[in-house]
Amino acid sequence: MSTQTTPLTRVLVANRGEIAVRVVRACHDLGIEAVAVHSAPDADALHVREADGAALLGGPQAKESYLRIDRVVAAALEHGCQAVHPGYGFLAENPELARACAEAGLVFVGPAAEVMEAVGNKVRAREIAEQAAVPVIPGSGNLSSIDEVVAFAERVGYPVMLKAAAGGGGRGIRRADDEPTLRTSFPQAMREAEAAFGDGSVFLEKCVIDPRHVEVQIVADRLGNVVHLGERECSLQRRRQKLVEESPAPRLEPRVRDELCAAAVRLAKQVGYTSAGTVEFLVDPRSGEFYFIEVNARIQVEHGVSELVTGVDIIGEQLRVASGLPLSVTQDDVTFRGAAIELRVNAENPRQNFFPSPGQVTRLRWPGGPGIRVDSGLEEGDRIQPYYDSMIAKVLVTGRTRDEAVARARRALRELSVEGVHTTAELQRSILDWDTFTDGSFHTGSLDGFIASWTAS
Amino acid sequence: MSTQTTPLTRVLVANRGEIAVRVVRACHDLGIEAVAVHSAPDADALHVREADGAALLGGPQAKESYLRIDRVVAAALEHGCQAVHPGYGFLAENPELARACAEAGLVFVGPAAEVMEAVGNKVRAREIAEQAAVPVIPGSGNLSSIDEVVAFAERVGYPVMLKAAAGGGGRGIRRADDEPTLRTSFPQAMREAEAAFGDGSVFLEKCVIDPRHVEVQIVADRLGNVVHLGERECSLQRRRQKLVEESPAPRLEPRVRDELCAAAVRLAKQVGYTSAGTVEFLVDPRSGEFYFIEVNARIQVEHGVSELVTGVDIIGEQLRVASGLPLSVTQDDVTFRGAAIELRVNAENPRQNFFPSPGQVTRLRWPGGPGIRVDSGLEEGDRIQPYYDSMIAKVLVTGRTRDEAVARARRALRELSVEGVHTTAELQRSILDWDTFTDGSFHTGSLDGFIASWTAS
Repeated sequence: MSTQTTPLTRVLVANRGEIAVRVVRACHDLGIEAVAVHSAPDADALHVREADGAALLGGPQAKESYLRIDRVVAAALEHGCQAVHPGYGFLAENPELARACAEAGLVFVGPAAEVMEAVGNKVRAREIAEQAAVPVIPGSGNLSSIDEVVAFAERVGYPVMLKAAAGGGGRGIRRADDEPTLRTSFPQAMREAEAAFGDGSVFLEKCVIDPRHVEVQIVADRLGNVVHLGERECSLQRRRQKLVEESPAPRLEPRVRDELCAAAVRLAKQVGYTSAGTVEFLVDPRSGEFYFIEVNARIQVEHGVSELVTGVDIIGEQLRVASGLPLSVTQDDVTFRGAAIELRVNAENPRQNFFPSPGQVTRLRWPGGPGIRVDSGLEEGDRIQPYYDSMIAKVLVTGRTRDEAVARARRALRELSVEGVHTTAELQRSILDWDTFTDGSFHTGSLDGFIASWTAS
Repeated sequence: MSTQTTPLTRVLVANRGEIAVRVVRACHDLGIEAVAVHSAPDADALHVREADGAALLGGPQAKESYLRIDRVVAAALEHGCQAVHPGYGFLAENPELARACAEAGLVFVGPAAEVMEAVGNKVRAREIAEQAAVPVIPGSGNLSSIDEVVAFAERVGYPVMLKAAAGGGGRGIRRADDEPTLRTSFPQAMREAEAAFGDGSVFLEKCVIDPRHVEVQIVADRLGNVVHLGERECSLQRRRQKLVEESPAPRLEPRVRDELCAAAVRLAKQVGYTSAGTVEFLVDPRSGEFYFIEVNARIQVEHGVSELVTGVDIIGEQLRVASGLPLSVTQDDVTFRGAAIELRVNAENPRQNFFPSPGQVTRLRWPGGPGIRVDSGLEEGDRIQPYYDSMIAKVLVTGRTRDEAVARARRALRELSVEGVHTTAELQRSILDWDTFTDGSFHTGSLDGFIASWTAS
């Protein structure tokens, strides 16, 4: 670990849209100049207008512009930047950008390339979790006899999933809720796997029923300090796309929460993590048991809810760490207050299978007043480009209680006005009135069912 | 004290501009409908657009509309409201509105009429403070002999002010920093008073040098609970008009802060205060001694900075109390986090003696992102009317430290864009870079000097 410090006076923001604006603001809050990069159609985008300098990377497609490591590094050097912040998406979890930065004498605002590689590999990440005594979903090696299969199922508890070792995309998976079903399914699964993949190897995994997706935000410096900023509940997903996130997680027992956060910190220490990161878990709402899923080695879209409950500027911490400084907070300094919710308002048509709806935003009126924060890469009159994600804004709300935050979220969507494109706001208004949301009893499978009945109504 | 509860479903907001929008939002956050009132030129103002109903009060002059108690009460009854929120200014501290509401069977969102009268009278307010063991500025009765004068000055300490009992507007005031000066000045002051006012009576008051204006926010319910939400530093005033406020007060010793807050709570209990109120003090920055000035028996413009550091929705508490519920927080529930600053951005020309600059706001771009809240009664294209105050917005910022809040305030003013009218933002940008502001060493006299040199530069 290097303890050298590099005072940052100018940072290249290697991204676009709301996260690029967010990073520019974090830079300005620290008295650092921010240089934007952009594709040809983004030449006049808000993230460019807000920055202190800008570099054209190339054509509209991301691979011609925002994914060009060579041009990002060249732009940073040309504009006299000391560091590169990758945001999320695009190059954010690409260790090659971290390496290219290091070779060019630039600080990459994120974990070391080797750490990104280690946590980016599912098998290695699982090993690291086990070394850190962080629970992973119990899984067997390949099993060939029914006795092994039954013994494993009895050890981890039913239900279990039989999975084809060579499978993928959901094929070759069978769930068994009891021993008789397992005894019948095992030979069928082997035959099916053989037929489908030419390889009959089958393994077992414990099945978590109606799990919740709960993740822990951590920040870590190069001096070995790791601090968690609590958890986020992110179960409200449509096809793994989060639509609503919040902190703290409702209905999470304090004991489980403490264990989750401690596990995330252990894992981060185990792998020598630095900068901001998220450790994702599945939580079994019945037993309170939790299992490590993966590490997101970057700032996440939903980081703002943790900022609202803790008061810590997570991107500010990333910049501090990148310059070699210690975190501005110890774990004891971090206090949790109230509740926060994020609504990702996208330019998509939720009544037409969330088809993207690019185009000019002819009217854009943000909510305001107490407990409301809007992070966006757009202003009225700007165009949502068809080449990139369709985010209009992250509408973040906070309240002293979850109920107050929910009420403010309703008000925020009432005050929000977007014209010219379709948006997800109407669906999100309905989610805020949905019993399963308000009572906090949802899980990762809940939203798809809700959307189906909402679309039909 | 009544402990009857009146569930509120509809509240009349008897005000305009940003505070009316703020109250509408507080109502909506509690699931309460809000009915706006307006003058003729305000028919399409934002506070009307945001409300669930509206009533025309009359012509453009406040005395024809916003000051018409009869019409406010009639509008509340006509629209089926249970309560009237007066905001600040206009009728907010007029006990007659509170009485008229009570007579019409409406709840007035504020303290009882008798309490407003008691604290609204300077002499009675001073008596109440003394009964509550809250320090007031030591003052003598009329003095006729030099021996009495010197004895009093020695008791309270120099410097002292000699004041003509019949005086006013600063006339007949002489400061004495020591006994010889006092001995010379006393007969002069008596002669001067006699000549100027036909009454030679003179009294002495302790002179607080370079005092700070620090005020304490309190909320109180009808069950006798009084909770303070910490203090606000409001010394940066131009002719008693606050331009920048913050919480906590910089350079205030924790012991003094605790005593101030306790004094405010004692005073509120002494007078049977309910709803939200502010107890104002002068603080001597050298000795840490403080003196009661007055009570503001209403929500104050700068309440938002206390909301940001405590997380408590003060107008929400007013509405709870008005409906007969207890406060949502006890003193132990209230935690203080970070620092918050408010900038009152007005449509005035600070280079031309703050001359009001009404007119259409042709471009209006609010700051956004982490730590920024904007409360405004305007949107782009709206007109600032010449009949009322010239506020464009309260730009509120918060940070984990005062330095972070100051940095965000700078960024907020950088992101803010207002076109079509003159604004105070340029002056406020300079204040944020002024050493005396950043080091927190200012007092109530500091800003006038700064403005004089800023205007000349």
